[in-house]
Amino acid sequence: MSNIYPTITDKSELENGSIIAPRFNADGLITAVAQDFDTGEILMLAHMNEEALQQTIETGKSHFWSRSREELWLKGETSGNILFVQEILVDCDQDAVILKVRLEGEGACHTGKRSCFYRKIEADSEQTFLTQIVE
Amino acid sequence: MSNIYPTITDKSELENGSIIAPRFNADGLITAVAQDFDTGEILMLAHMNEEALQQTIETGKSHFWSRSREELWLKGETSGNILFVQEILVDCDQDAVILKVRLEGEGACHTGKRSCFYRKIEADSEQTFLTQIVE
Repeated sequence: MSNIYPTITDKSELENGSIIAPRFNADGLITAVAQDFDTGEILMLAHMNEEALQQTIETGKSHFWSRSREELWLKGETSGNILFVQEILVDCDQDAVILKVRLEGEGACHTGKRSCFYRKIEADSEQTFLTQIVE
Repeated sequence: MSNIYPTITDKSELENGSIIAPRFNADGLITAVAQDFDTGEILMLAHMNEEALQQTIETGKSHFWSRSREELWLKGETSGNILFVQEILVDCDQDAVILKVRLEGEGACHTGKRSCFYRKIEADSEQTFLTQIVE
């Protein structure tokens, strides 16, 4: 349940309407994908509670809910790697958003890499493994 | 816990290693983002259990876990809108994957649209609302 946003139970209204009614899960979260506005590269995936979504819309800086620290998290607050939101898209059933962002700083990943998705799953006839993607 | 994949607790090995050790959540799921291999457009977001991931790697067709139907789901099995996997990327802490796909069929979204993310969040001084994106 959300205090800020309405709950829409009508499927057609949820999917076709113009009302923002995020379907937060049992933990009060939706999924957020941060995608580079200019290149389309997916930088990271995180979660938002209603406050994180609200703050993101209001400030234009990506906020998430840190599940490990259990607190609202302005991405880049300590690292300086701020994700400035250019556009927010929401999916059909309103339980996920795409943040189209411009990254100020070195990388969106805490490892220092630009994207968190720096490894590829490879398979040969004998096994499946990961390879590092060289940027 | 997974029957197919190992569990890695060492953070460095999880983040830098070459072993696939997906961190399935309490429901046995990781998050999967399907992204158009050629254009970078994000088509949909869904969830995978270990069997869905395994089937996706083995067959090259995107499989998910349907949380509503509680069953393994070959995307496009009924609609014909198959997402053929060209590449799979995994994130730093191995709880999310990107499927870089080529879509065979009309749309990835059950609404018939190409992408599930067909609405943009807009804000003016008085309210926040959704607008349809015209493709």
